[in-house]
Amino acid sequence: MDFSEEIKKRAKKIEKELETYINTEEVPEKKLNEAVIYSLMSGGKRIRPILMLEAFKLFAKRKEEIMPYAVAMEMLHNFSLIHDDLPGIDNDDFRHGKPTNHKMFGESTAILAGDSLFNKSYLVIAQSLIKETNKNKVEAFYEFSKAADRMIVGEYVDTDFEGKPISAEYLEYIHKNKTAALIVASIRIGAIIAGAPVQDLEKLTKYAEKIGIAFQIRDDILSEIGDEKILGKPVGNDVKRKKSTYVTKYGLETAKNILHTTTKEAVEIVETYGEKGKFLKELAIFIENREK
Amino acid sequence: MDFSEEIKKRAKKIEKELETYINTEEVPEKKLNEAVIYSLMSGGKRIRPILMLEAFKLFAKRKEEIMPYAVAMEMLHNFSLIHDDLPGIDNDDFRHGKPTNHKMFGESTAILAGDSLFNKSYLVIAQSLIKETNKNKVEAFYEFSKAADRMIVGEYVDTDFEGKPISAEYLEYIHKNKTAALIVASIRIGAIIAGAPVQDLEKLTKYAEKIGIAFQIRDDILSEIGDEKILGKPVGNDVKRKKSTYVTKYGLETAKNILHTTTKEAVEIVETYGEKGKFLKELAIFIENREK
Repeated sequence: MDFSEEIKKRAKKIEKELETYINTEEVPEKKLNEAVIYSLMSGGKRIRPILMLEAFKLFAKRKEEIMPYAVAMEMLHNFSLIHDDLPGIDNDDFRHGKPTNHKMFGESTAILAGDSLFNKSYLVIAQSLIKETNKNKVEAFYEFSKAADRMIVGEYVDTDFEGKPISAEYLEYIHKNKTAALIVASIRIGAIIAGAPVQDLEKLTKYAEKIGIAFQIRDDILSEIGDEKILGKPVGNDVKRKKSTYVTKYGLETAKNILHTTTKEAVEIVETYGEKGKFLKELAIFIENREK
Repeated sequence: MDFSEEIKKRAKKIEKELETYINTEEVPEKKLNEAVIYSLMSGGKRIRPILMLEAFKLFAKRKEEIMPYAVAMEMLHNFSLIHDDLPGIDNDDFRHGKPTNHKMFGESTAILAGDSLFNKSYLVIAQSLIKETNKNKVEAFYEFSKAADRMIVGEYVDTDFEGKPISAEYLEYIHKNKTAALIVASIRIGAIIAGAPVQDLEKLTKYAEKIGIAFQIRDDILSEIGDEKILGKPVGNDVKRKKSTYVTKYGLETAKNILHTTTKEAVEIVETYGEKGKFLKELAIFIENREK
C-alpha cells in the first residue's frame, strides 16, 4: 500500500473514533456544538493521534486506554486552529479548503467553540481516568497539559513577533513550542502509556523533536510555494505580513536544506528499531515531502 | 469577627497560594504571563475556592491535596472572565475597577492569556495527581472538567440570546450553567476529596445550586442598581443591551424576592449541620446582600 494511503486509512480510524464524541442533540447550545463539530471533522491529516497510536504500538504489551488520549490530542490541536484563525489573532478566512470557524459561525461562537473543544480534550482524559487510573495514564495527562501550555506560549510569541525582525533563536523557540510541543507530546504519551523504557522514551522524544521542526519548516515552505487548491488556503502571505518563518528568515533553498537534514536525522533514530520502526521512518519522509 | 472580614481573610489565604504559581521569569512569553497575572491577581471575592475549602473542612478526616483544586478553580473562573470580556463577546472595558485584559494587553494577548490560564488550571490538577493519585482526586478532576464544559455552554447560550426575548426556562438554563456550575463543582470537589458520604454530597449540591442561582440574581441586581465605585464596572447597561437577566426579565422587585426565597432555602439546608454549617449559612446570606 502507498504510504499516503496508509496515512489516510489510519486517519479514517481516528475520525470514526472522533465521531463517537459528537453531540447533535437538540440542546440550547446546539449551534455551539455544530461549530465544534465543523472544525473537528473538517479534515486535517490527524498526524498527532496517528503518531501517538504508533508509538504506543511499538511498546505495548497489553491493550490500554490509548484512544481517548489520541482523541484528546486531536481536539487540542483543532481548538488551537480555531483560536489561531480568529480575527483578533491571525485573521484567516480559510482552513482545510473551507471557511474558518469564525467565518462560518461568527467570532463570539468561534471563541467559545474553541474553549469548548479545548475543555472537551480534558473531559475525555478525565473520563478515561475514571474508567481506569494508573501511574502511566496520570503521567500522560501531565505531559498533555504541559504540551498545551507550550503550544499556547509558542502561538503567543509568534503573534508577538509578527512584523518584527526575529533572531534564529526566537524562531526556533516559536516552532519548538507552537508546533513541535504537541507532536513530541503525542509520541511521548503513546510511549508512556505503553510503559516504554526510559531510554526508548528519550530516543523517541529526539525523533519527535526533529519531525516537529520538519513539520513546521514544510508548513512554512508550503505557505510560500504550495498549491492553494491542494492546501485549501491562500499561499504567499507570510512575506507580505512580515511573518517570521523559516522561508522568510533563511530563504527557500536554505529552508529546504534544513528540512532535509532534520528529516535525515529523524530517520536515523527510528532506523535503529528495524522493521518495527518502518512506519515512523516513512512518516518522517512523508512529512518532508507532503503537499498539504 | 465581621463576616466580610472573615471572607477577606480567607481570600488572602487563597491569593497567597495563587502567588506561588506566578511566573515572572525573563522568558520570551513574559508579557503573556503578565497578562495572566494581571487578571488572576486583580482582586475578586475568591468565593469558589473559599467554598471548596469549607466543604472540604466539613468532612475531611485527614490532610489532603485540596489546595491545588482550589487554585485550579480560581484560574478557571478568571479565564472565563477574560474571554467573556473580549471585544468578540461582551466587549467590556472594566472589571474589578480596572481595565479588562484586552484593554490592557490587546485582544490577541487577551485571547491567549485566557487560553493559557484555562490550561494552567488543568496543569495544576495534573501536577497534584502526579504527586498523589487516588479515586476521589480523579473524580474531582472529572467534576472540574464537566463543570467547565457547562460554564462555556452557559456563556454561549447567554451570548446567543443577547438582544432576543428569552423564556424563563432558558434564563434558568443560562445561569445554571454559566454561574452555578462552577459554584456547585467547587462545593462538590471539596466534599468529594474529603470523602463525604453520598447523602451529604447530594445535600451540599442542592445548597450549592441555590447559592449559585442566588449569586447570579444578585449579580443581575447589582448590574442594574449597584454602586459603580464599589462594583468597579459600569452599571445599567443590561437593559440597553437587551441582555437577558433576572432583572430585565422579571423586574427588580420580583428578582429580589426570588433571591430572598432561594437564599432562605439554601440556609435551611446547611442549618442541618448546626455549628459546623455556620460559615456556609452566613455565606449564603452574604451572597444575598453583597454590594460587589
